[in-house]
Amino acid sequence: MKVSIIGATGRVGRAAAFCLAEENSVNKLVLIAREESVDKIKGESLDIYDALAAKGVYVSIKTSSDLSSIEGSDVVVLTAGASRRPGMERADLGSLNAEIVADYAKKIAEISPDSIILVITNPVDVMTYVALKASGFSKNKVFGLGNHLDSLRFKNYMAKHFHVHVSEIHTRIIGQHGPHMVPLISSTSIGGIPIEYYSAWDYFTGYQPFDIKKTIETVKNAGNNIISKKGATEYGPAFAISNIVTTILNDERKILTVSAFLEGEIEGIDDVCLGVPVKLGIDGIEGILPIKMSEEERDSFIEAAEVVKKDTKKIMENLNSEDP
Amino acid sequence: MKVSIIGATGRVGRAAAFCLAEENSVNKLVLIAREESVDKIKGESLDIYDALAAKGVYVSIKTSSDLSSIEGSDVVVLTAGASRRPGMERADLGSLNAEIVADYAKKIAEISPDSIILVITNPVDVMTYVALKASGFSKNKVFGLGNHLDSLRFKNYMAKHFHVHVSEIHTRIIGQHGPHMVPLISSTSIGGIPIEYYSAWDYFTGYQPFDIKKTIETVKNAGNNIISKKGATEYGPAFAISNIVTTILNDERKILTVSAFLEGEIEGIDDVCLGVPVKLGIDGIEGILPIKMSEEERDSFIEAAEVVKKDTKKIMENLNSEDP
Amino acid sequence: MKVSIIGATGRVGRAAAFCLAEENSVNKLVLIAREESVDKIKGESLDIYDALAAKGVYVSIKTSSDLSSIEGSDVVVLTAGASRRPGMERADLGSLNAEIVADYAKKIAEISPDSIILVITNPVDVMTYVALKASGFSKNKVFGLGNHLDSLRFKNYMAKHFHVHVSEIHTRIIGQHGPHMVPLISSTSIGGIPIEYYSAWDYFTGYQPFDIKKTIETVKNAGNNIISKKGATEYGPAFAISNIVTTILNDERKILTVSAFLEGEIEGIDDVCLGVPVKLGIDGIEGILPIKMSEEERDSFIEAAEVVKKDTKKIMENLNSEDP
Amino acid sequence: MKVSIIGATGRVGRAAAFCLAEENSVNKLVLIAREESVDKIKGESLDIYDALAAKGVYVSIKTSSDLSSIEGSDVVVLTAGASRRPGMERADLGSLNAEIVADYAKKIAEISPDSIILVITNPVDVMTYVALKASGFSKNKVFGLGNHLDSLRFKNYMAKHFHVHVSEIHTRIIGQHGPHMVPLISSTSIGGIPIEYYSAWDYFTGYQPFDIKKTIETVKNAGNNIISKKGATEYGPAFAISNIVTTILNDERKILTVSAFLEGEIEGIDDVCLGVPVKLGIDGIEGILPIKMSEEERDSFIEAAEVVKKDTKKIMENLNSEDP
Repeated sequence: MKVSIIGATGRVGRAAAFCLAEENSVNKLVLIAREESVDKIKGESLDIYDALAAKGVYVSIKTSSDLSSIEGSDVVVLTAGASRRPGMERADLGSLNAEIVADYAKKIAEISPDSIILVITNPVDVMTYVALKASGFSKNKVFGLGNHLDSLRFKNYMAKHFHVHVSEIHTRIIGQHGPHMVPLISSTSIGGIPIEYYSAWDYFTGYQPFDIKKTIETVKNAGNNIISKKGATEYGPAFAISNIVTTILNDERKILTVSAFLEGEIEGIDDVCLGVPVKLGIDGIEGILPIKMSEEERDSFIEAAEVVKKDTKKIMENLNSEDP
Repeated sequence: MKVSIIGATGRVGRAAAFCLAEENSVNKLVLIAREESVDKIKGESLDIYDALAAKGVYVSIKTSSDLSSIEGSDVVVLTAGASRRPGMERADLGSLNAEIVADYAKKIAEISPDSIILVITNPVDVMTYVALKASGFSKNKVFGLGNHLDSLRFKNYMAKHFHVHVSEIHTRIIGQHGPHMVPLISSTSIGGIPIEYYSAWDYFTGYQPFDIKKTIETVKNAGNNIISKKGATEYGPAFAISNIVTTILNDERKILTVSAFLEGEIEGIDDVCLGVPVKLGIDGIEGILPIKMSEEERDSFIEAAEVVKKDTKKIMENLNSEDP
Repeated sequence: MKVSIIGATGRVGRAAAFCLAEENSVNKLVLIAREESVDKIKGESLDIYDALAAKGVYVSIKTSSDLSSIEGSDVVVLTAGASRRPGMERADLGSLNAEIVADYAKKIAEISPDSIILVITNPVDVMTYVALKASGFSKNKVFGLGNHLDSLRFKNYMAKHFHVHVSEIHTRIIGQHGPHMVPLISSTSIGGIPIEYYSAWDYFTGYQPFDIKKTIETVKNAGNNIISKKGATEYGPAFAISNIVTTILNDERKILTVSAFLEGEIEGIDDVCLGVPVKLGIDGIEGILPIKMSEEERDSFIEAAEVVKKDTKKIMENLNSEDP
Repeated sequence: MKVSIIGATGRVGRAAAFCLAEENSVNKLVLIAREESVDKIKGESLDIYDALAAKGVYVSIKTSSDLSSIEGSDVVVLTAGASRRPGMERADLGSLNAEIVADYAKKIAEISPDSIILVITNPVDVMTYVALKASGFSKNKVFGLGNHLDSLRFKNYMAKHFHVHVSEIHTRIIGQHGPHMVPLISSTSIGGIPIEYYSAWDYFTGYQPFDIKKTIETVKNAGNNIISKKGATEYGPAFAISNIVTTILNDERKILTVSAFLEGEIEGIDDVCLGVPVKLGIDGIEGILPIKMSEEERDSFIEAAEVVKKDTKKIMENLNSEDP
């Protein structure tokens, strides 16, 4: 299986390259960078080869500034664009990145028309919409990394609080990959047992109750927090990417939360990309899950949809007006 | 970590030996058989060594008829006793096996007083009770394999029906490891989304509805079905055993369904061992989960408790009357 | 990738089915048995499904007596035939098994003409020749399991003696999979350091010297020893098979010792199948390694060739005379 | 098992933290940085937690500037010190780093007297000597990462040239981790077959002969090459470190090439730390391997020893003269 990363010099792109190179299901990895950065990703690939020798794994890595190298990719990971610096919000990047994403999406469609596009560039919900429209691909083949990472973080915090294995926490964050993320508390269970059945939430934890609101704030700020400390998020997004890519390549049919194009499947919302649970396999999105929500969750989800829709509209207008 | 298997010549014991030998967390494996069968398990251990060389794994395997070899075990897997032949029910084995289990449990308590006992011998809910009482161990350290295997089978069938990865199915079967097993439909979710939210159950499956009753019948008969075909169940129980043992050894704090001694935690039921969801770690059972059930499930669970309690009482009486 | 096992009811076939089902690179597994045994392998497949649910792995298993199910296999594992009972030598099976193997090889060539055939049936060197001729396949696509298992056993014993990790032992046994096996002591190293450089062989072992002759006798008798104890070899051959199959499927280009058709590559020996080191990849044998040997090793290898050639000739004559 | 990394803010330290966090055998990870960098490694640990949630792995990570946190470590990885910038040689770092290393080694000996010290700081052969003397530990418990990484690189290049799996290449580079590295061509084999047996070296490669000298030059420059391109080596050293640490923690008794203190075991060389093959297990170095060499190799090895000895002497004198 062949995977290409566009924008492989960024810190997420580099770490994703490393994580994907380790995966059995990836045989060919193509790293694309601008011409002035090709030497840098060449260095990355040599460093990765050293690491793989220590693991006894083999993968062929090609580094190039020439996009034609991505031909025949099963998945293209699109990370190109400016990334957040300390103090910035994901939304601030929109106008900067839309042109870059649209341009690459068109070229991917020409060069590698059967591939699946996984959008990483932020603000990811808007950029997924941009990539979908620019590529002309069907909606099952273009989606974005967003709430999957938020969901992983939320699970992590819950697992620590309840002192259970992280695989026992089943919960999701949907909506916007940003301040309007919506935790699906009504569909949250521990070990498959709905969380409301825990007679007292403090069951496993003595007398310290689980504070959902505070935890969600921590999730919302997790990216900013890491960026303020180490300058960038890196391993977290990288592993979330490799999670999604291997689910596709191995046709695992797992149910992950990605930014997907809606056509009324959930609460009648349409013409926007938002984080929702989907079944992922070798053809990309096989279906959007029929979730129901509490009233509060639904309100927040609809609000998230409105916010992202407005942002998307503005950016699409700018983008189209710039076209000659 | 040291694991001992008592009754390693049975087909489940042999397959469990093989599965456990492969696990990183198991360094020492002790296989106990009756004196006339020691040669047979010696053959097993040589065969396992050959297999491990092909995998590059190393474990020290000791075969013996002398129970003193189990000293210092972290976990003792107790599979000794007669096993079902085609046409037999698990309950038929009770009187045959109670003495064997009681005898071994006493000796385990003497020789390896800090170990955890995992009971496999059928009827497992009753035999767990026998082993708990005979060993004098605390209730967190003696439990039985039962509904964990049933639950795995149920998940498998659901995953096939809904065409999703088995890790996305969260459900449990509790109660008796036998005809009175109780599927916890009210705590069942796919990808964390409660199954009742699926507006139509046929969501992923076109127009073929998911038939719970029929599926449960298949689960109930799964063991018999395999026994009638190949003469014994082997790999399924073996992997379920290695699942439970590694959860303990790695202190994973997963929530598995094992036959555990109840003292009123669920619906006030006490003084019986039944399949319930527990959090498992290095000290064995860390807690029984606070499940709630639908009315129908609760009725079935209470019935299961009564049946197993009655069986247990009869067998304990026989057992005690035989003591000099 | 699709793998088929013909003769899946034998103990090696059953265990190989289980080992292969666990492998990531195997998506489809076909188990073929005679009509009267189809129920038995159906039981196996159900048992394997239970085990895989415990591991979270998915593979599609088809059981059938109809050989047409093997169509499109990447590898066909041919284990059909009588197997050794206690007291029998591998060679005793020759006349019994040649017809079975020839018959299946012809049918494999018709139904699945692009597959690779891995011969397990004993005496394996002769049966590989039979299968090669009957299938009409090119020599890189038909080879036998033989000295790979012997080599694994030899490595295991050396690793124990020298108290090092088995992956540090590099040695091979070539020639016949039987009494005329030839250990390549001249190409033996520990940690890559030639064994003759160990100033004293007892370097790691105090004063107990490593007794090659005795160890080789143990290797020669390993199969018989296990058969006499547990009635059959099972896990060792099964893992050796899965080793070879995954090396092919993943195009790993490892150098394994299999029974391969010689055309003068080593010491001018030709027209016989013998255990020699080959490079294995997705197309089967990519090349036979250019080994040199000590004089003693060469003499033994030539003797092995003569013995196997004579056996092969006799069996091929019988086989052809029986053809109408 | 508990592993501590001192100097966890450097790029090798950070990547090593990530690699070790993924390992099953590591339960507790302590990351030590100077007070002004603690926030940075706190960011790293949060990023690693995110990544591990995606993998379902759990490890406890503590970040601190207080060295007392390393108490009870099984292994301490010492990466503190200035690292190479483009244009610098490893040797240039000696005077800068000796004091730092000596100081930490003393404190490790006080706080965690039973741990093993793995020295990463360059020039590693000299720094290992410094750490050994300053800690007062026995020689089996202090060693350095050096030629293990060089050896991995050499294997990688050979595997590519001969188009075989990297695990089939058995070779080593010994001596100095620097320009005086010595490839052990006389103990080099492919698939266990000595490389000189390959009648023509071009066996697997058509007519392109394998150019040892050129390959060794590539190995020597590999670090510089990566540093010039991406600014630092990162994943290669990190995986080499995790390789060595897990070999220790799992008591794997693999034979790796580390910088070890010699007392005449090889060619009579003593009182210097140099890259040599050692057997590694839970107690650190269990023994130095009895290698022999070709005349040319021996000359180079002796030269390497002299160079490193001279460097070491100079640095030890400076270090001692600075002590009050």
